[in-house]
Amino acid sequence: METMRALVKERPGKGLVLKQVPAPRPGPHDVLIRVKRVGLCGTDAHIYSWNSWAAGRLKPPVTIGHEFAGVIERVGSDVASSHRPGDVVTAEGHLACGVCIQCRTGNSHICRNVRIIGVDIDGAFADYIAMPAANVWRIDPEISLDVAAIHDPLGNAFHTVMSADVRGRSVLVTGAGPIGLFCIGIARASGASRIFASEIQPARLELARMMGATQAIDPSKDDLDKIIRAQTDGLGVDVVLEMSGHPKAIRDGMRAVRDGGEVCLLGLPEGEVPLDLSRDVIFKGVTVRGIIGRRMFETWYAMRSYLRAGLLDPTPVITHRFVIGDFEKAMDAIHSGAGKVILSLDGEKR
Amino acid sequence: METMRALVKERPGKGLVLKQVPAPRPGPHDVLIRVKRVGLCGTDAHIYSWNSWAAGRLKPPVTIGHEFAGVIERVGSDVASSHRPGDVVTAEGHLACGVCIQCRTGNSHICRNVRIIGVDIDGAFADYIAMPAANVWRIDPEISLDVAAIHDPLGNAFHTVMSADVRGRSVLVTGAGPIGLFCIGIARASGASRIFASEIQPARLELARMMGATQAIDPSKDDLDKIIRAQTDGLGVDVVLEMSGHPKAIRDGMRAVRDGGEVCLLGLPEGEVPLDLSRDVIFKGVTVRGIIGRRMFETWYAMRSYLRAGLLDPTPVITHRFVIGDFEKAMDAIHSGAGKVILSLDGEKR
Amino acid sequence: METMRALVKERPGKGLVLKQVPAPRPGPHDVLIRVKRVGLCGTDAHIYSWNSWAAGRLKPPVTIGHEFAGVIERVGSDVASSHRPGDVVTAEGHLACGVCIQCRTGNSHICRNVRIIGVDIDGAFADYIAMPAANVWRIDPEISLDVAAIHDPLGNAFHTVMSADVRGRSVLVTGAGPIGLFCIGIARASGASRIFASEIQPARLELARMMGATQAIDPSKDDLDKIIRAQTDGLGVDVVLEMSGHPKAIRDGMRAVRDGGEVCLLGLPEGEVPLDLSRDVIFKGVTVRGIIGRRMFETWYAMRSYLRAGLLDPTPVITHRFVIGDFEKAMDAIHSGAGKVILSLDGEKR
Amino acid sequence: METMRALVKERPGKGLVLKQVPAPRPGPHDVLIRVKRVGLCGTDAHIYSWNSWAAGRLKPPVTIGHEFAGVIERVGSDVASSHRPGDVVTAEGHLACGVCIQCRTGNSHICRNVRIIGVDIDGAFADYIAMPAANVWRIDPEISLDVAAIHDPLGNAFHTVMSADVRGRSVLVTGAGPIGLFCIGIARASGASRIFASEIQPARLELARMMGATQAIDPSKDDLDKIIRAQTDGLGVDVVLEMSGHPKAIRDGMRAVRDGGEVCLLGLPEGEVPLDLSRDVIFKGVTVRGIIGRRMFETWYAMRSYLRAGLLDPTPVITHRFVIGDFEKAMDAIHSGAGKVILSLDGEKR
Repeated sequence: METMRALVKERPGKGLVLKQVPAPRPGPHDVLIRVKRVGLCGTDAHIYSWNSWAAGRLKPPVTIGHEFAGVIERVGSDVASSHRPGDVVTAEGHLACGVCIQCRTGNSHICRNVRIIGVDIDGAFADYIAMPAANVWRIDPEISLDVAAIHDPLGNAFHTVMSADVRGRSVLVTGAGPIGLFCIGIARASGASRIFASEIQPARLELARMMGATQAIDPSKDDLDKIIRAQTDGLGVDVVLEMSGHPKAIRDGMRAVRDGGEVCLLGLPEGEVPLDLSRDVIFKGVTVRGIIGRRMFETWYAMRSYLRAGLLDPTPVITHRFVIGDFEKAMDAIHSGAGKVILSLDGEKR
Repeated sequence: METMRALVKERPGKGLVLKQVPAPRPGPHDVLIRVKRVGLCGTDAHIYSWNSWAAGRLKPPVTIGHEFAGVIERVGSDVASSHRPGDVVTAEGHLACGVCIQCRTGNSHICRNVRIIGVDIDGAFADYIAMPAANVWRIDPEISLDVAAIHDPLGNAFHTVMSADVRGRSVLVTGAGPIGLFCIGIARASGASRIFASEIQPARLELARMMGATQAIDPSKDDLDKIIRAQTDGLGVDVVLEMSGHPKAIRDGMRAVRDGGEVCLLGLPEGEVPLDLSRDVIFKGVTVRGIIGRRMFETWYAMRSYLRAGLLDPTPVITHRFVIGDFEKAMDAIHSGAGKVILSLDGEKR
Repeated sequence: METMRALVKERPGKGLVLKQVPAPRPGPHDVLIRVKRVGLCGTDAHIYSWNSWAAGRLKPPVTIGHEFAGVIERVGSDVASSHRPGDVVTAEGHLACGVCIQCRTGNSHICRNVRIIGVDIDGAFADYIAMPAANVWRIDPEISLDVAAIHDPLGNAFHTVMSADVRGRSVLVTGAGPIGLFCIGIARASGASRIFASEIQPARLELARMMGATQAIDPSKDDLDKIIRAQTDGLGVDVVLEMSGHPKAIRDGMRAVRDGGEVCLLGLPEGEVPLDLSRDVIFKGVTVRGIIGRRMFETWYAMRSYLRAGLLDPTPVITHRFVIGDFEKAMDAIHSGAGKVILSLDGEKR
Repeated sequence: METMRALVKERPGKGLVLKQVPAPRPGPHDVLIRVKRVGLCGTDAHIYSWNSWAAGRLKPPVTIGHEFAGVIERVGSDVASSHRPGDVVTAEGHLACGVCIQCRTGNSHICRNVRIIGVDIDGAFADYIAMPAANVWRIDPEISLDVAAIHDPLGNAFHTVMSADVRGRSVLVTGAGPIGLFCIGIARASGASRIFASEIQPARLELARMMGATQAIDPSKDDLDKIIRAQTDGLGVDVVLEMSGHPKAIRDGMRAVRDGGEVCLLGLPEGEVPLDLSRDVIFKGVTVRGIIGRRMFETWYAMRSYLRAGLLDPTPVITHRFVIGDFEKAMDAIHSGAGKVILSLDGEKR
């Protein structure tokens, strides 16, 4: 194993190339993983199309990809944890520095020196990846490789829902892409009493209903605020989970939240968003939380518990599967309103 | 309506008598309710048998009973809320003073001057009861009179579960009487990943399973601690909800909770309980919470949300129904390991 | 006492008039208070100048004023609390409805039906005011009438600081008007380790230092962000308390807060404020809280404790005193960078 | 440097011996520290006298001591943090495993595999100690070596006070040994409005007053409960910080806490303590927290902030200083009601 396949951003500009590259050389604290499945994220699409964020952040050449599952091939000599060759695993793709104040106070999800696989360093869309043992996460045998491969975005959803109190509460999820869809399922399993989803793509509205949304609304066609007021005694929703990053959705959410409610923002808007802070935040006594990444590793333990207990089935969100060679088709798929798109590196479709 | 039937503690000593008493005369801030169903509580049994607590607290004659549902007959002239004759209602039976520091800081469930219906003042086991409008709670039309009548103990259970974080957590409920059984159902609906119930009465163990316990254990027969350790990677449970008041169960719970876990105590032990605080609380960094009554009115809103959303069905816990005249049989029933016992005042059995 | 003096907004447009009006007629649940001192608020200035908010909200004629202290003259027949004639008191000027969901869940500071004295109903700039007994707050004998008269804005400051965790934390207070100045003193007494104040008026910068600011900065002259970074190992501040309502200050605060920090917004901006949510809230994992009014009555008890223990001396913030007849001069004073302006109704200057 | 002095528990039974032992050999992730000052803890006294806890836990021979300050002599080759030879440092003496669920979720203070220096492995009462770099804590130049040497117990006190909300609250500290005395100072600096200290040793009562106790009470002479009720409108205290481990003090604290209050337990009682849970915890709705160690490293950052800002001066608590050769005298001192006892390893007394 001297070389391997990898999906590489070779140079600035649109496109990616699947090519042979040197295989990674894991250090004594690392685990070498043979990659089986990867999940395609909006971030990967931005890197493919080379938007302004990608142009400002990446230093090609870099192997992309951060959502993955695989099997441990080899464990470094100084690894203290119980990882063993043959274990099915995924990994936390944010490599925290361990020495900054955030890392030292239980907040490594906002590490000041974080390096993200597939962005800052070589990623997972390759036959092999070497990961620090501390980032590697063992997958229960009952869990499919596909679900294993999407623990990263599923963890984003868990981080978001767990940061709010949804028990017996009405929830609005704005944006029913994969993470929003996961949020719906998690909120449902956590005691949310009524879940509104807002989304403009018809296929995603249907998925939102499948995942447990009480009502899935296209705000370009129906009056979201009016519908929510009618169903909440005019109060608005207790909790808003903003997953889209669209300025209009953010403003819709700020509008829809009730006095004293909570708004969790995960979707990343480009540029500035004008907000009526007096009306929507201050007079209402609202709390707004920025959510990034996954808490290490509370989020991961919560995710394991829910999956193990069967409280959540994320599989309906996986709508497309391709082999790695068809990555161009996969890129097209995520622009057509799909749920989660999975690529296989071991030839199998499932 | 000058007189009415009432179940009265006439004088110190064992027993109760069903007799004619003057009907209540509601004040301008009160609501007069025609009582349809009442729930029998352990407290009522203590009053019946006249245990030391009852002897120390009650000043006979007093009409007993605090769990009830009925229909509004008349609304006082100064009542600001939207209550209307014909509404099906129950009520918060703790009459808080409204002026003590607890009441003034959102903690009226621990009001320093609380008066409890059926204990400190005349209660609900009668054809009519007058309640301050602020305590009266409207019941949704979909909810049965039986479930309406048990909002008080169901609320105890909601208060307990909501005071902990059970999402993705393992939970031990010690004591599967009605409130413990409700806790199991609420925890299940709130994302608990594994629920252990400990209880010595076989019928209640069966009810615990029906309400959603992953495992129902008789600690007089099986090794509770060993079973829990085996199922929790040796860690112990994340959350203990103590509903029995039995010293052994309290100590079992303190033992079973994991490092950093939470113990909620609702069951009321008689006398002192010896605890190994160093081993079970301090070295483990455990949080212990005393739980009393229901939060006014957060608990009530949460309860309404869960019931309205169908997240919880408390009806399996209701195992016995009698007419009010058969109150002696009802008292026998609650001593025989029953679930919740309901009495009817309108002749119907359901 | 059939008529009394009152400072009245008689009709739409600029100005106020001091005139004789009928004295209030307290109901059975009310307390009649002879007003001694009143504090002038920015809100009063807006009513005087009749800005768009005032034009949209007030229905003249209305007696203005909500910050006051006085002596109880008479107590209504149905008042249960321990108020007595002769007590020095102030009052919570937000009259909550008591029946909405916010009031019923300990959040009456965001009551949906709130009426504010001096805005929605007649206020305190008069010889007498009748207040519901539940809103009346007894003042300790050691407290001066002037300090008694500013419990309302002091309470805003307490509500703000208490909603954050400032212990051992660096704090930025943007806007050193009276409420910002109070915040500085409260944060200092609560364990804040470093307090930055940003403000453009020189007199207020000086007051900020007197109240305990470690550093008082004019952001129109000095580079606020650079100064803060230099003093916080480049991290930014832990907590921002935004008291100005100025869009630039809000954006400065969002910029200055560290990853994982907290921003409390009390100052009310007019119109929309563009925010870089991705950079300043989401990537940083920041929590933003809208703060309005005072928590009833946690905020009031906290305020009493701090004052009683001598943890805070708010008197340096009181910079101007006038008799009620000089209200025009007082209005001028608050536009010239003053601290708090007090008006006296009993002829004394102190 | 092949050998060095060390204070060693050579074998089971009473006593310690100061002898030459091999100097430590730091690994690549370690920092070698030349020890200058050490603090004597009750734990050290238990090891000296060989009580049942010591006999059950220690495996002699072991160098004792966990409170220390010194100067970095050498930094391991793989140390990523910014430690440099010549830095004055102390260290977190709990060596957490880093891989258990507690360590992985920000709770390494309750690591399941913790090893404590001076107890489980060789400690700090020696000329040199090697510590993992992650545990080493740099001391600001303004801080004296004596204060540097007591960061461990000072951190216990910070952990305790920070786990409660003392702002504007009344606090009872039971037990005015060094950690209790630190708690008093920290609570005072954090906005506690009234601090009661209970303690039976006269010298410590005096120190309690010096550190900021409003009232220092000998419960063997005065009626603690009566005094507290008289000063708290009959309510009891908001917060109890139990630092003594004495059953009576624990029970006093449970009695003294008000309805809805908080009790933090740090002192370690031997054996079981009988508690009236119904009366003191459940009916009162009290929260009880077990406190152990220091949060890594929130507690340390908080401690640095308070010391850097001059919010707290712990030096009055240091009442005795000896050279290491006089360790027997030092052991006598801590049994005679002293504050903190410091030993010097560099011949200087200060």
